Amino acid sequence: MIRVGILGASGFTGARLVYYLSRHPEAEIVFATSRQNKGKAISELYGNLRGLCDVKFIDPDDADTRSIDLLFTCAPDQTSMKVVPDYYENGISVIDLAGDYRMDTAESYEQWYGQPHTSPDYIKKAVFGLTELYREKIRKTKFVSNPGCYPTSVILGLAPLLKEGIIDCSSIHVNSVSGISGAGRDLKLFKLFYEADSNVMPYKFGRTHKHVGEIEQELSKIAGETCMVTFAPHVVPMKTGIVSTILVNMAKKVSREDIDNLYKNAYDNEFFVRYYPDKLPESKYVADTNFCDIGIYLVEEAEKVIVVSTICNLGKGASGQAVQNMNVMFGFDEKEGLL
Amino acid sequence: MIRVGILGASGFTGARLVYYLSRHPEAEIVFATSRQNKGKAISELYGNLRGLCDVKFIDPDDADTRSIDLLFTCAPDQTSMKVVPDYYENGISVIDLAGDYRMDTAESYEQWYGQPHTSPDYIKKAVFGLTELYREKIRKTKFVSNPGCYPTSVILGLAPLLKEGIIDCSSIHVNSVSGISGAGRDLKLFKLFYEADSNVMPYKFGRTHKHVGEIEQELSKIAGETCMVTFAPHVVPMKTGIVSTILVNMAKKVSREDIDNLYKNAYDNEFFVRYYPDKLPESKYVADTNFCDIGIYLVEEAEKVIVVSTICNLGKGASGQAVQNMNVMFGFDEKEGLL
Amino acid sequence: MIRVGILGASGFTGARLVYYLSRHPEAEIVFATSRQNKGKAISELYGNLRGLCDVKFIDPDDADTRSIDLLFTCAPDQTSMKVVPDYYENGISVIDLAGDYRMDTAESYEQWYGQPHTSPDYIKKAVFGLTELYREKIRKTKFVSNPGCYPTSVILGLAPLLKEGIIDCSSIHVNSVSGISGAGRDLKLFKLFYEADSNVMPYKFGRTHKHVGEIEQELSKIAGETCMVTFAPHVVPMKTGIVSTILVNMAKKVSREDIDNLYKNAYDNEFFVRYYPDKLPESKYVADTNFCDIGIYLVEEAEKVIVVSTICNLGKGASGQAVQNMNVMFGFDEKEGLL
Amino acid sequence: MIRVGILGASGFTGARLVYYLSRHPEAEIVFATSRQNKGKAISELYGNLRGLCDVKFIDPDDADTRSIDLLFTCAPDQTSMKVVPDYYENGISVIDLAGDYRMDTAESYEQWYGQPHTSPDYIKKAVFGLTELYREKIRKTKFVSNPGCYPTSVILGLAPLLKEGIIDCSSIHVNSVSGISGAGRDLKLFKLFYEADSNVMPYKFGRTHKHVGEIEQELSKIAGETCMVTFAPHVVPMKTGIVSTILVNMAKKVSREDIDNLYKNAYDNEFFVRYYPDKLPESKYVADTNFCDIGIYLVEEAEKVIVVSTICNLGKGASGQAVQNMNVMFGFDEKEGLL
Repeated sequence: MIRVGILGASGFTGARLVYYLSRHPEAEIVFATSRQNKGKAISELYGNLRGLCDVKFIDPDDADTRSIDLLFTCAPDQTSMKVVPDYYENGISVIDLAGDYRMDTAESYEQWYGQPHTSPDYIKKAVFGLTELYREKIRKTKFVSNPGCYPTSVILGLAPLLKEGIIDCSSIHVNSVSGISGAGRDLKLFKLFYEADSNVMPYKFGRTHKHVGEIEQELSKIAGETCMVTFAPHVVPMKTGIVSTILVNMAKKVSREDIDNLYKNAYDNEFFVRYYPDKLPESKYVADTNFCDIGIYLVEEAEKVIVVSTICNLGKGASGQAVQNMNVMFGFDEKEGLL
Repeated sequence: MIRVGILGASGFTGARLVYYLSRHPEAEIVFATSRQNKGKAISELYGNLRGLCDVKFIDPDDADTRSIDLLFTCAPDQTSMKVVPDYYENGISVIDLAGDYRMDTAESYEQWYGQPHTSPDYIKKAVFGLTELYREKIRKTKFVSNPGCYPTSVILGLAPLLKEGIIDCSSIHVNSVSGISGAGRDLKLFKLFYEADSNVMPYKFGRTHKHVGEIEQELSKIAGETCMVTFAPHVVPMKTGIVSTILVNMAKKVSREDIDNLYKNAYDNEFFVRYYPDKLPESKYVADTNFCDIGIYLVEEAEKVIVVSTICNLGKGASGQAVQNMNVMFGFDEKEGLL
Repeated sequence: MIRVGILGASGFTGARLVYYLSRHPEAEIVFATSRQNKGKAISELYGNLRGLCDVKFIDPDDADTRSIDLLFTCAPDQTSMKVVPDYYENGISVIDLAGDYRMDTAESYEQWYGQPHTSPDYIKKAVFGLTELYREKIRKTKFVSNPGCYPTSVILGLAPLLKEGIIDCSSIHVNSVSGISGAGRDLKLFKLFYEADSNVMPYKFGRTHKHVGEIEQELSKIAGETCMVTFAPHVVPMKTGIVSTILVNMAKKVSREDIDNLYKNAYDNEFFVRYYPDKLPESKYVADTNFCDIGIYLVEEAEKVIVVSTICNLGKGASGQAVQNMNVMFGFDEKEGLL
Repeated sequence: MIRVGILGASGFTGARLVYYLSRHPEAEIVFATSRQNKGKAISELYGNLRGLCDVKFIDPDDADTRSIDLLFTCAPDQTSMKVVPDYYENGISVIDLAGDYRMDTAESYEQWYGQPHTSPDYIKKAVFGLTELYREKIRKTKFVSNPGCYPTSVILGLAPLLKEGIIDCSSIHVNSVSGISGAGRDLKLFKLFYEADSNVMPYKFGRTHKHVGEIEQELSKIAGETCMVTFAPHVVPMKTGIVSTILVNMAKKVSREDIDNLYKNAYDNEFFVRYYPDKLPESKYVADTNFCDIGIYLVEEAEKVIVVSTICNLGKGASGQAVQNMNVMFGFDEKEGLL
């Protein structure tokens, strides 16, 4: 049984994390912080947790930071970079769900997040927590930077093609739709049911979206060359779920059979990635789960491939993958708490 | 062509009103106020109005209050009671969409709204704007207090029964569902798509809901005796729409045929009230319209009647009825702007 | 490990049952039948099950009816009454999710279902599977008739009041809303997204709904006197979920404190019933779970009580309660498979 | 006043057409056919029309085909090609909402629709009814083939760029989302609320979608060279609405200002096309209207342009544009019936 703390537990990713952990036989929540909701039980905010989890929010300043084996940080950007070093130096494992340690350098962080990084020395210590790609590194580290939701869908969707050098790395176009929880729980007009229902809204196209930096950085590492991405995300009327529909030009000709073999080899032993040789996946198949479902449409006449990759943004795109990483780090069954 | 001003035009009822008026051949919007959005075009907030209406919000303090023939007030409670008297005294017609002048006395206002009334002398000047019931009074007045949304659905649903003394006035139980726009556009957590989608939420049961006072007052007037109402409203995942399902005990035995005749007599000449002798109406039939659809389920073995009355809360429940009242007051075709 | 068969597994309740059982450590699905889908994997119909459950539908005629310890029947009405006796006589436990054995007599079955009962001798052998009320009987039986969804919400909601003789049994009015899965998966126009979205539809009011018979029968047993129910169910735009808002007249005066104590005593030891002393529950709290959440609004001035009882119609209202009953019958932890 | 007939009026486009025509001062519906629903009033299927339109469906065989000035055909594919010639030869104007006459040759029809064309001589007589592009031809013809929904969004979105030769015609990638009414009203499982809610479903990617032929044909005509399109359409949980997000490579460098001027010049005099220089449009702005809203995201670093074009699939994408075309053909105000 490990002892776990959660910083910033009152948002959507925090609540989902509490839900997974409440079902995990090897983890115990020691504290969950929320400055705004301190004193309240989490089930007051998320009624579904009533009877399942009686955690009360405490003020982050009141957290006994030495009492835990593992810290999850779900706080807003620019929080982790301030608090993580202290935990790290005290030998406490950290899984950071924010974006603070996702970029490889302080410069690229500043470029994409528009803020200077206040603990740049710790950037290199963090392992990028895309479990299926970096499992061995995750097993050995005490500090995981958990990937963003869009990046998770795109990286898992393209990795097998990139590794084989099959695609033109300058041609990657990602068209995504996301449920509205992807935009967080703070109060903004466009998130109202009245505004969001029966509506599709283009939302932060192109390089205005900080996930583009993360996507390009990680795809480039896998490809071994610079990847350029155009990005067109949209908010659709769903609570959760991401479908990334990714168009790429092929660098060499491949057949349907080649593609199928490539993805089967890549993912047949991965429980949480389901490859569809027969059809394209729908977002409801992965709703509220830690699965990533992938299907391929081959545009043979144009030598293009369209990859459809779908996840739950709060599951595999955030808290699910965080728990999966915890399971890897602590030697638990990778599915524990997630089914 | 009449000249119209709108106070508090940036909310849902204000925007719906602007939409109806933009299609009305006899009305011109001279000003629309919004302290928070002054300087913005209304189509910046409501993209559907782009190209249809180029009104820009002004600060209420900048409104030329003498330039208009008619003022609509869509501002929050306790605003109309402050500004209406001045318009009234200057001979300007007023249709108040807030609750300020709906209760018959300052005492009952204070009882239900929890605030003292600051212009009690004007309460008696206002005509309750349930068009089908008070058309002649509305035709002659310069001051209409527009009914609330739940009250409109309930009063139209029960009026024929009450007039005939058919029901036990102490037995009225109103179970309503409402789309979320009924709770307004200010930012609250429960209105987020994430919170409201796929959810039914009991919302302000019983005498905690100020509409109960309005309903009891108006039903009592029609019945000629004191009506008592239990009220169970719920928010359901729709943008707009109210369905009130009203149970009453019969004071005397009536047949299906009696009921049908009663409602047909009451409403066959009313364009905006559609009685269903054959089935129960659904809320989508009246979505975004000024119709009130009514159907009856007769529980003969228990000597009870269930009335189903459905409206669009922003249409017949607010801005639609307001325009209908404007049409009556100024002698226009009652349907003008509303189809 | 028990061996389980499912008749009629391709509908919503069948699929939910397969989902729960796939997570149950003590149950193994030996066969799942679907005449229409035989040969298909269940995950072809319900993509969420891919990788979790590889059951293939077989034709019911090909089921090895002697190979199992327990049969679940999810087939349409009038199927169980034909097949259950044979299983029963061969010592196989049965949990019937259809309505065939819910009414206490062949006469009342025929009255409410409009068909003669073809195995009336077996009616008395079935235990009504409302777990919290009849746990001891369920523990000892081999034949459970699983309650309907609306009845489950209403019976759990009213049982504490009925047992104490607090309410007027002739005054029970049930106003319910339900997600659309309650109407089943067969293709009908009103179930289309286009027809059901943004709509509230009154659906089978009063004694046209066969659940009324089940509700009255069971409430009467608990009360020890004849209960009469008026019923006003509506379909709302949700996939799952029931909220029953129940108005009753009090037969004697009770305080808020009395009510709270009554429900706490009744349900504090029941994991799957959560009583809310502080507010009224919302349907999202119980979505996809086996919980029943109950809250009370006391209308003191009118000596009435409004009970709000919410369940997931596919969870506690069907397959969840079926698995709960299986757990009781076979001595497993009652929560197994359900969290 | 012109006399109008509608073939196949019981589907979504038929009902929307009836709605628009019921508000049109210059058109009278003489007959509306539906084999399946003959004898029923259209308001029995579409309750919103109650009191607005009392048309009763007749059997198509009973239609007095000589009594009308204009025929709209909303029947399934392969119907118009059989019935239109007779109307045409009798001097009756025709607006065909099906796909039968959209392809320029019988060969391309057969290629995309998989059926031989039975009246190939009439193909050349039809004018493609994209009003903004072919208004003068439409004014002079008696036979309009109304464009498909996706094609309308794509053609209006790209026309200004294509005319100027700014884009690489082999690089066009269309990623679309559509509300579910785009798939019609016939009963299929994926259209159920239970299946479609909270879900995004890739639907008929690439050349499996017959609209691709129409899009490529029409874009090529405008560009004066062969256009190749990759197509990735998805169904999202909305009743209506299409957002096409179109990626193209630039053939020459253009600035933001160039783009804005291009689109303003193209559409500033077009009431039903609204160009957004300031932001990207959302589908709710055009819901249930005849507008097409267009915005541009310029990916300067990659020399690409992303065009976002949104319409209501039943409005500008079908029945709205059909009425707009009727208005042009008969010399009515182009907005009549559509606001």
